Amino acid sequence: MTTTFKVDTRTALLEAGKDIMFEKGYTNTGIQEVLNKVGVPKGSFYHYFNSKEDFALKLIEYTDEVCGAKSRRALTDSDVSPTERLMNYCLEGKNALSESKCRKGCFIGNLSQEMSDQSETLRKALSAKMFKWKELFALCIKEGQKVGEVSKAWPADKMAELFFSGWEGALMRAKTIKSVEPLNDFIDLMFNHILKAT
Amino acid sequence: MTTTFKVDTRTALLEAGKDIMFEKGYTNTGIQEVLNKVGVPKGSFYHYFNSKEDFALKLIEYTDEVCGAKSRRALTDSDVSPTERLMNYCLEGKNALSESKCRKGCFIGNLSQEMSDQSETLRKALSAKMFKWKELFALCIKEGQKVGEVSKAWPADKMAELFFSGWEGALMRAKTIKSVEPLNDFIDLMFNHILKAT
Repeated sequence: MTTTFKVDTRTALLEAGKDIMFEKGYTNTGIQEVLNKVGVPKGSFYHYFNSKEDFALKLIEYTDEVCGAKSRRALTDSDVSPTERLMNYCLEGKNALSESKCRKGCFIGNLSQEMSDQSETLRKALSAKMFKWKELFALCIKEGQKVGEVSKAWPADKMAELFFSGWEGALMRAKTIKSVEPLNDFIDLMFNHILKAT
Repeated sequence: MTTTFKVDTRTALLEAGKDIMFEKGYTNTGIQEVLNKVGVPKGSFYHYFNSKEDFALKLIEYTDEVCGAKSRRALTDSDVSPTERLMNYCLEGKNALSESKCRKGCFIGNLSQEMSDQSETLRKALSAKMFKWKELFALCIKEGQKVGEVSKAWPADKMAELFFSGWEGALMRAKTIKSVEPLNDFIDLMFNHILKAT
């Protein structure tokens, strides 16, 4: 029973931290706010996490696992074609942004922008996560090229980089202008022009 | 003489604020740190700025004017062709990022990512600045289409959106992985594929 309680408190702290840090960023997130939301004393927090930075490190893992699950499933769904996988990833992201009224965006992207120059520990963790996502995009593109669905004019790695950075930039633009139009433009050009086999 | 002194103190505060906020973000920037750098008392700050948010608003104007000058010149240089203007904009941005060892990135982009969900005042100012930059990209693309240098397969506005968000995303990626490779990939695909007239 104790184990169950421990796991639950840790998860509750991560869940509360995710909600707060996703919208407010790292610096703006106070540990006290997280504690208040969960209703546990400070000691509980330091039982599970060494510091705020350590909490953020665990949050990078947690949000990637929890929030990234649907997106990862979309990108690895062998029931549909490689470009459909990429499209489903985009539609899933667009839906999430619409549901949050163009707030939040991408946890990894937000933290990267804010913390890459502030914490080498977080930067390395974010960079490693990004590497894995880029690999997933590249795999779909490579497979798409193999089956003749995706243009072979450019190496899959380069296209995956543009897919990734274009999507992250479009999320940032959408957050700022509070409209999904940048995502629509990205999807339109990416699938009907850049990736398209000629 | 008094006027000259007043202008100088204000500019000194903005210059110090730009350096600090560019690298550390809005929340991480303390007014005291700015004051210490300039060597003036708190009263001076509140003589020129109503609040930290007001200071950030003025910094958005100031950095856009000062840091954006070279980029704006590149995009409006009628001595070179429209695509050369866009290319010079990218090369200028890549040089700036290399010189800062892949730190900082884009002031407007950083603040947008951090503050779009936190301050409606800052979000609107950032959104308005972005609108102007997108207009400059769109103008080059439109002119490029007119002279047959840029593909007419897509409306200039859509291409300008992808140019903008792709570039901002590539800057964020470059900051995180501490390499200009995402910018190189963006430039390569943008100029040799997406914009290219066929």
